[in-house]
Amino acid sequence: MNEIVLAADLGGTNLRMAAVDSDGKVLYRTGIETPRSENHKPIVASLIQLAIACREATKKDASVTAFGIAVPAIINTCGKIFNAPNLPELNGLEFSSAIASKIGVQVIVENDATAAAIGENWMGASRDFGSSICVTLGTGVGGGIVIDGKPLRGIDGTAGEIGHICVEPDGVKCGCGSFGCLEQYSSASAITRMAVELRDRYPKSLLRNKTGLGPLDIFNAGKSGDALAIEVFRRVGYYLGIAFAGLVNVLNPEVIVIGGGASAGWELFIDEVLYEIRKRAFKQPAERVRVVRAELGDDAGILGAARLALGK
Amino acid sequence: MNEIVLAADLGGTNLRMAAVDSDGKVLYRTGIETPRSENHKPIVASLIQLAIACREATKKDASVTAFGIAVPAIINTCGKIFNAPNLPELNGLEFSSAIASKIGVQVIVENDATAAAIGENWMGASRDFGSSICVTLGTGVGGGIVIDGKPLRGIDGTAGEIGHICVEPDGVKCGCGSFGCLEQYSSASAITRMAVELRDRYPKSLLRNKTGLGPLDIFNAGKSGDALAIEVFRRVGYYLGIAFAGLVNVLNPEVIVIGGGASAGWELFIDEVLYEIRKRAFKQPAERVRVVRAELGDDAGILGAARLALGK
Repeated sequence: MNEIVLAADLGGTNLRMAAVDSDGKVLYRTGIETPRSENHKPIVASLIQLAIACREATKKDASVTAFGIAVPAIINTCGKIFNAPNLPELNGLEFSSAIASKIGVQVIVENDATAAAIGENWMGASRDFGSSICVTLGTGVGGGIVIDGKPLRGIDGTAGEIGHICVEPDGVKCGCGSFGCLEQYSSASAITRMAVELRDRYPKSLLRNKTGLGPLDIFNAGKSGDALAIEVFRRVGYYLGIAFAGLVNVLNPEVIVIGGGASAGWELFIDEVLYEIRKRAFKQPAERVRVVRAELGDDAGILGAARLALGK
Repeated sequence: MNEIVLAADLGGTNLRMAAVDSDGKVLYRTGIETPRSENHKPIVASLIQLAIACREATKKDASVTAFGIAVPAIINTCGKIFNAPNLPELNGLEFSSAIASKIGVQVIVENDATAAAIGENWMGASRDFGSSICVTLGTGVGGGIVIDGKPLRGIDGTAGEIGHICVEPDGVKCGCGSFGCLEQYSSASAITRMAVELRDRYPKSLLRNKTGLGPLDIFNAGKSGDALAIEVFRRVGYYLGIAFAGLVNVLNPEVIVIGGGASAGWELFIDEVLYEIRKRAFKQPAERVRVVRAELGDDAGILGAARLALGK
């Protein structure tokens, strides 16, 4: 009988939970909207409640051995959350002590982007590779790095912030306080902003007078040949390629995995990404690195959390 | 009695060799100008000759157990040299098989910048830290990364090329084929080029009409308050800071060590480096990281090679 663990992906909008076996098979899954409040109690209570439900549902299969949780936050080496911009009520919380005693198993907490990188490395697009970089193009740009099969966390647990590599020294101001971060050119929000910035130059664009413009509109316009939309995604690829070329020169990874909502624009940006990597990175590592689409979608974080729980 | 190893630092100009004990003490040292030729034979013969001399000189102390060699080249995971721009006669050579049989001990070959990072991590500026980045500001900009006490080599052995992070997307063309690499703004050669580019703007500069301008002239002018020289080193610091901020966000290291000839300009660039790191990197890792001067000078590569030999 396989070992079973619980795994949660706690997002700013949704809290998803699953029971996962040691083959990476999801045996049971459940979820709710993330309960928001001024303090962490509703989130902790929901995690416990859903965890118990998952455990009950799989009781006949095996006993649960651990519980992994992916969180959109920086977690220090002691498991304490110290920077959760989208769930500030969690700042300062130690999940392990808050939850472990109620569930009766060890709790492992991991940054969500790192968990996604571990998930893709276990069951997804980078599963055949020892060293990989996983980039998530969402509202922001998240990143996780795996080297020799192990997540790179850094001394404070803050490593992997690929979205905050500078790609334009005097570029657009970023929410992090810097200027010209990759996130300002390759996230879903950046796609919309760039389309608005550029549309006066494209009087014939389908997007010229559209109100409530979003990344999906721009992607659809690009697929139908709209020059403005094509230029926006070319820029996405150009800046991703600049950042990736630096990562290829510095880390010499086997594979770069691109996921997240905005990776839907793949066919409109990937050629430019590959062109910039080949132009800018050293020949050997540039020829080596594969750039591929993520395979696990929303399950990457859950499976990464499960993998970490299984490792305990 | 301590274990003793042989260690060589093979440069484009000098070949230096030492016998080193397990405490990092240099027991004997020797060296010659690197013998250049169309093939690798003179270099291999000199390495063997100097190694035997070192071994003889320390015979009474202990028997030599291994031989580490730092080489200005990319070395693949099998120990084969496949990219040695300054010593092209070494391309394709496997030092281990060429030398080990003659010396009778195992031979370990390492990239010189990585060896310097290991050396500083063992006996120098980063010795109290598990994760460090070592940057060498010479004719080019070299780099080596140590994570959890181990060198980061990458899948092909090409990792650590910090000098080829892009800091200006449309910047100066680099010898590597890319544009706007850090090396084009922070190496000794870049310091001279930037001074020449800028001097028309500084009619009162001491450097205005100087012929045969070199980095040392510019440094000396900067120390005496010359505005052109100060601006050149400010730019060195600005671009180092941009690259380091990205590395701090991606790797979250404990320390960044700066060495090489152009690090002599430290007092003229370090404030700008620290300013850009604090401005651009996330708060926690930016406050954590220390930026320090290298301590081992020309011995960094030899001691790194010795450390690797001792590990075998």
